[in-house]
Formats: sequence, C-alpha cells, structure tokens
Amino acid sequence: MVHNESRKPRKGPGRGTYAVGDERRSRILDAAVEHFAQWGFHASSLARIAKDVGITQGGLLHHFRSKEDLLVQVLARCEENDTELFFSHAFVSAAECYAALVQLAEYNSTRLGRTRMFNVLAAEAGDPGHPAHAYFTQRYVDLVAHMSDPLRHAVESGELKPDTDIVAVCQETAAVMDGLQVQWVLDPKGFDMVGRLRGYADRLLRSITVEGNGLAPDA
Amino acid sequence: MVHNESRKPRKGPGRGTYAVGDERRSRILDAAVEHFAQWGFHASSLARIAKDVGITQGGLLHHFRSKEDLLVQVLARCEENDTELFFSHAFVSAAECYAALVQLAEYNSTRLGRTRMFNVLAAEAGDPGHPAHAYFTQRYVDLVAHMSDPLRHAVESGELKPDTDIVAVCQETAAVMDGLQVQWVLDPKGFDMVGRLRGYADRLLRSITVEGNGLAPDA
Repeated sequence: MVHNESRKPRKGPGRGTYAVGDERRSRILDAAVEHFAQWGFHASSLARIAKDVGITQGGLLHHFRSKEDLLVQVLARCEENDTELFFSHAFVSAAECYAALVQLAEYNSTRLGRTRMFNVLAAEAGDPGHPAHAYFTQRYVDLVAHMSDPLRHAVESGELKPDTDIVAVCQETAAVMDGLQVQWVLDPKGFDMVGRLRGYADRLLRSITVEGNGLAPDA
Repeated sequence: MVHNESRKPRKGPGRGTYAVGDERRSRILDAAVEHFAQWGFHASSLARIAKDVGITQGGLLHHFRSKEDLLVQVLARCEENDTELFFSHAFVSAAECYAALVQLAEYNSTRLGRTRMFNVLAAEAGDPGHPAHAYFTQRYVDLVAHMSDPLRHAVESGELKPDTDIVAVCQETAAVMDGLQVQWVLDPKGFDMVGRLRGYADRLLRSITVEGNGLAPDA
C-alpha cells in the first residue's frame, strides 16, 4: 500500500488527528493499567503515567480530565471487552455458561497486568470513599444479573435442580474466580488458575444438575 | 485496689516502661491496619499513622524501623492470631475443619478494617517488588499445608473419597474465602459472606465425602 501514492491519503484533515488521538488515548489507558496494578489508585501518579507514554501531564489531561476519570475509563474499557466476549450471546445451558467462564479465566491468564490491576482495584474499592467503590459494587450486581439469566433458564429447562439457589451460586462463582486470580497473580507460572476453575465448575455442575453432569470434557 | 496504697506499685521500674511500650506498639499496629486498608501500602505514610496514634514519626520509628517492617509486623500479628484460633488443634474430620473455616469467616465479619486490609495487601503483593510478596506467596503454601493434613487424614479414615484432589480443594477453598471477602467488604451489610461460605462448604463436602454428608447443621 505504501508505494501506491495515488490511494487515499493515510491522514485526511481531521481524520488523522482522530486516529493519533485514539492511539494516544489507548496508550495512556494501557500505561494506566500497569500503574494501577503496581501502585494501586492512590499511589499512582498522572505525571508518571504521562512520562511512560512519552507525553506531558498536560497532554494526558487533554484526554482524561483527572486520575479518577482515567480510572473509570480504564475499568469501563476492560469490562466492555469482557462483556462483549463472554456475555453477549444467550447461553443454551448452565454447562455452556461455565465453559465460557473457564474461557474467560484462560483469557485472563494471558494478561497479567490487567488481572493484577483488577485484583488491586476491587480490593481497594472496599473503601466507600474510593473512586471505584460505586463501580465495583455495581459490577457484582451486574455480574449476578448476567449469570442468573442462563441459570434460571437452566432450572426451567430441567438442566438444574429446581431448588438451586441461583444468586448464591452466582456470587460464589464470582468469588472463586476472584480468589483464584489473587493466588495466580502471586505465582503465575506455578498456580493453575484455569485448572482450578475447571475443577470447581465441574464439581458444582455435578451437584446442581438434575442428571449430575459436569463440565463438557472439552471445556 | 486503687485505695490500697501498700499493694504492689502499678508501675515498677522497667515494668511500667515495657507496658507503656507494648500498649503504644499495639496502638501503632491498629492504626497501621486502618491505613493499609484505606490507602494500600504505597500511599500509606508513617507520618500520618504516627499522627493518628498521637506520637511523632520519630516515636513510631522507635518501635518499627521502617514502613516495610511495620507491614510485616502487622501481617504477622494478624495471622498468628488466626492460626492460634483455628489451626492449633488437630481436626478429627474434614467436616470439623470446614466448620472452623466458617467460624473464621464469622470472626472476619466482625473486623472490617482487618479484612479490608487483607484484601488490599494480598492483591498488591502480586507485584514481585512488593514488600509483602514473599509473605503472601508463603501464606498460601502454608495454608494449603495446614488444611491438607486433616483432609488427608479424612481420606485415610474413609470420610473423604480416595480420589479427592486435596491440594486443589484447599486452593479452591482459600479462593472462595478470599473472593467472598472482596464482595463482603464492598457491601458489609447486604452481602452474606458467612452464609455463602456455609453453602459452599456444605455442597463441597456432600460431593467429596464417601457418604455424601454436608456440613453439620450447627456449623
């Protein structure tokens, strides 16, 4: 493409500026993930994040109006991505839903920085004055809502036992995933996060399904 | 006692100094728990912790030689306490071991600051450069070792199925407890941490015990 000068210009007026802006914005978000993961929210510094991206703090503030704003945008981008990947289609069974969660853990095991950041911010956000407190409180409500739908369906279809406490199961599943992430981040090479989640999901399904079936063997 | 002046003096030489020193040390540790819980390790400040205790930073450094030292002492005191309370006697069964873990969660639900601090530090410590990295890595190794003993016994005694993957079960249990703590700290009044752990332990025991027995009803 490069040698065909007659093709569309790579940067049109305005368009190029947007592209550069988007790319810079994206690099700031990536750097912020690393800083929040290592330092937590409070000890992270906009000046140091800007320096890592090779811009000034003023340049950073052109894209994000404060550290709080940057935090919210970082979280929104991470979660959007996950929701799209794993919760955008309707699961036909509880087993399929759990297979998708195992896939999510597999994906998380390829992105240490993001997973570390998530652990730190979810824990810090327990402080009611933390700028991500509302975000994380709502996150677990949404997560339970997202997961409850396919599980309720699975009760109706006869896959799950009728007395399954769906909210309890969803909250417990979220807890297992979060807790496994903490152990995995401490020892990413030695700790088998995906294997542990697979084992949990398999045992859980065997005990809440009517037929006692676990996770599909290829999950 | 106060009006009997002839009794042993309340402060002997040295003894009184020790007592005052111990009490101050203890107050510093309590204040540190709150600061680490709210600000994380990096953004916590010795000067502000000292101020909360009503002493100077120099006075604090008389008891703890650095912020790292204070962190290590805070963690050691917390964990010592728990180990004594819950792991000092030999459990006669897996069911008894899980009943003790439910009790530990009950205890944790009475100390929000300590639980918040634990969540934050365990997450932060995922950074290999964090001063508590070695502590938390070892903590999960110890925890699995502590729990493995009674569970292995339970396999030998015929309570648990012979093919129980004990290490996996211990790591999963630690994950559930940690993850439930994150959700509980976000919503201490609304989230039933103890109930969720009880439900998990009961279902787990039903699936790994030979007779399919869950948690004792009074656990």
